[in-house]
Amino acid sequence: MNKPPAGNGTLVSNGAAPSLRAQPLDRIEPRLPAALSLEEMREEVERALAEVEFPAPAGAERLAEAARYALLGGGKRVRPILAMAAAQAFGIPVREVLPTACAIELIHTNSLIVDDLPAMDNHAKRRGRPTLHRLYGDDIAILAGCALLSEAQRLILADQPGPAELRNRLLQAVLEATGTAGMVGGQFLDVTKYRPHGRDDLERLQMLKTGTLLVASVRCGTLIAANRTDPDFDSFAASLGSLFQVVDDILDETGKASWLGKIPGSDRLAGRMTHVTMFGLRGARETARELHERSLESLAEIDARTPGSTQPLREIADLVYRRKQ
Amino acid sequence: MNKPPAGNGTLVSNGAAPSLRAQPLDRIEPRLPAALSLEEMREEVERALAEVEFPAPAGAERLAEAARYALLGGGKRVRPILAMAAAQAFGIPVREVLPTACAIELIHTNSLIVDDLPAMDNHAKRRGRPTLHRLYGDDIAILAGCALLSEAQRLILADQPGPAELRNRLLQAVLEATGTAGMVGGQFLDVTKYRPHGRDDLERLQMLKTGTLLVASVRCGTLIAANRTDPDFDSFAASLGSLFQVVDDILDETGKASWLGKIPGSDRLAGRMTHVTMFGLRGARETARELHERSLESLAEIDARTPGSTQPLREIADLVYRRKQ
Repeated sequence: MNKPPAGNGTLVSNGAAPSLRAQPLDRIEPRLPAALSLEEMREEVERALAEVEFPAPAGAERLAEAARYALLGGGKRVRPILAMAAAQAFGIPVREVLPTACAIELIHTNSLIVDDLPAMDNHAKRRGRPTLHRLYGDDIAILAGCALLSEAQRLILADQPGPAELRNRLLQAVLEATGTAGMVGGQFLDVTKYRPHGRDDLERLQMLKTGTLLVASVRCGTLIAANRTDPDFDSFAASLGSLFQVVDDILDETGKASWLGKIPGSDRLAGRMTHVTMFGLRGARETARELHERSLESLAEIDARTPGSTQPLREIADLVYRRKQ
Repeated sequence: MNKPPAGNGTLVSNGAAPSLRAQPLDRIEPRLPAALSLEEMREEVERALAEVEFPAPAGAERLAEAARYALLGGGKRVRPILAMAAAQAFGIPVREVLPTACAIELIHTNSLIVDDLPAMDNHAKRRGRPTLHRLYGDDIAILAGCALLSEAQRLILADQPGPAELRNRLLQAVLEATGTAGMVGGQFLDVTKYRPHGRDDLERLQMLKTGTLLVASVRCGTLIAANRTDPDFDSFAASLGSLFQVVDDILDETGKASWLGKIPGSDRLAGRMTHVTMFGLRGARETARELHERSLESLAEIDARTPGSTQPLREIADLVYRRKQ
């Protein structure tokens, strides 16, 4: 699983970087980044998210407090880590990605706040704590949700280093995945109980719910690192997004109530169309195995072409495949 | 009130434009814009808003429909017209401002949808039609509101002509006025019934509720036209924003129920702090007169320095001052 030795006849071995890579980076060039582990990335994200400021006018401090409560309530931070890990595959310091990575987490947080509202799924708890509207009221929760969307874009504009053209491309990638054609479109299909017609349509639905923002996360990483999107990175992220959903469907059927925070089998009982209810547990497990395999194949392609480490991306795929809650 | 003859020793009369202005523009240089009237600008905005697309995935067409219902339900279109009129003061074609102008109207529409929700002001009607949530349900209204925020930014990125740096600045101006430090901050103070301490604090509150987005509208116009913000334009927009609110306060006390859509005096009955309840009708009217005067003074400064027509800006100030509903 480790990176093959540098300068191995790959597409990128025509510069100085590969020859540097053979020796300990810290000793030669302190500015070159050491590769971060998944856990180190998570810590970086957590630190950066805690520092995000919501400039509230006098009297509106509780609005900023509400936004921070929702944002800093734990979570796996998959999206920002994906952006950082994608950039690291190109060998660039993950910190250069942090503002955009955090912005995507703000947007994801908006979707959680909205999904939890009484008008939507009406959840009382999220990650073991009261949901935002239960603690602050529906009105403040809705306003905090809107604020997170605007502040996310502002974060990219104000803090993401690089030329203006890059910030535009990042915003475009993020907004396409957020608006009617992406996340919000997926939330709509969910709340209106859209019934997919067959496997392709189910995958399209699940792609909208989770996949588009995951793909955007990876895209932001490669845009910052290499000023381009990359079909193998896109495929990796799309497989990962689908995998995430299939595993969700499986866990709904097989998970323990204490882990799920709901009764196992609730999808089936509610007549929802999922990989399990449509193709059985066995079919869903086979799909998960295929998707995990496909994500690793994309990583192998990436590995052959990029100078940095894809190890954290591999670990994310494994974690998503094997997760139990 | 008309523009003084061009080339009058002003700051801008060192180029070709002023000498062109003395003759009918259409005859000399067909690409130079004819000045549009307020009504013509409103028509341009209405046409452009009707063309804004919300790319919805299959099954989510009703989400796009909901966003369009809220967006195209009438309204004075003050914000987009302000952006266009500010650009016209510099003599540039108002159409160059349209994407950003429309984006601001999308954001304003988000605030109306949110304010009307049962969790907020719980309005059944808006501009004589059922509010969005009454027609589509709270869930879809909330999602459409979020979609409008994202699609607004996307509109600027995708359609606003000019260099990437300009789009960055426009987005920054719009987002600062939208997030916690602007519109959403104002909505928070409103919904939590913040009680202002004296006149300055009342003006600050009202600035947040209306002023910041009006200032941003004008700023976008001058950024596109002249690649800069301008303190006189800012002052004009700030006076206009305050004027709008003071007149609102006066109309709440003196308006007719059929025009207001609510019982006259409802602010007073609800114990709200307004210019009328704090300083009496006479005090409020005096403030309105001063603000109107101040906005015209800013325009006189602008008029002395810009090549185009400020007539529509003047008409907006007059209309806001004299409006009866």
